[in-house]
Amino acid sequence: MKLQEVWMKSHVREIPVAECRELLAAQRIGRVAFDDDSGPMVLPVNYALEGDTILFATGLSTVLAHHLQGRPVSFEVDDVDTETESGWSVVVRGLAEMVPHDQMPASEDRPRPWAAGPRPLVIRIRPHEISGRRLVPA
Amino acid sequence: MKLQEVWMKSHVREIPVAECRELLAAQRIGRVAFDDDSGPMVLPVNYALEGDTILFATGLSTVLAHHLQGRPVSFEVDDVDTETESGWSVVVRGLAEMVPHDQMPASEDRPRPWAAGPRPLVIRIRPHEISGRRLVPA
Repeated sequence: MKLQEVWMKSHVREIPVAECRELLAAQRIGRVAFDDDSGPMVLPVNYALEGDTILFATGLSTVLAHHLQGRPVSFEVDDVDTETESGWSVVVRGLAEMVPHDQMPASEDRPRPWAAGPRPLVIRIRPHEISGRRLVPA
Repeated sequence: MKLQEVWMKSHVREIPVAECRELLAAQRIGRVAFDDDSGPMVLPVNYALEGDTILFATGLSTVLAHHLQGRPVSFEVDDVDTETESGWSVVVRGLAEMVPHDQMPASEDRPRPWAAGPRPLVIRIRPHEISGRRLVPA
């Protein structure tokens, strides 16, 4: 390893929880990790926040609809600069659940799917752990 | 729902496998989903390709070092434009394994961690499934 590489590397810093929440609130796309019948799976979703919970919409017969109800999941958001090889990520762990019809948020607060097609189900992740790391350029 | 919203929505298109591989080769950051003792977890890593396998480096006592050996994982890359609400994602499913010292790729082909600190372990994902979806602006 060349000395220059050592000096150029970014440094890892933990992100305080309050800042993790701000970063989560500022993003619109995250990736949800869950287990299906073949093991761990990860898919991107566009999401909205309601309080400290994460909401996203899906269709009736999607893998998300089939494998998330009452199950542990993780949810990741990040923003990365490949030029400076720096950035940040926030990871939430929690339980996923289908939002019952009578508990749907008001339509303006509901997650609005980017993709065309019916996505009548709303899935909520209730976080029990949130953590973040920042890669700070050297 | 307003009529305008219906017309503005993006359309989902499957990405052919050959193009999925090209997209995977062009990115540098992905997110690996795996199971640890608490369930599904997802973490970003910077990666390199060797053939059709995905390589990334980690430290000796990280969650990745402890939970990936011989285990099924998923790996996701994406690129999203929040203005046009479009983008693409590619998801690989496969088995993860530690690369033995005598099978390490030449140093110029080895994944070069962005973060400072020792990351002597190299983890390889051997894909058995690759798929991608593109959200095309309406």
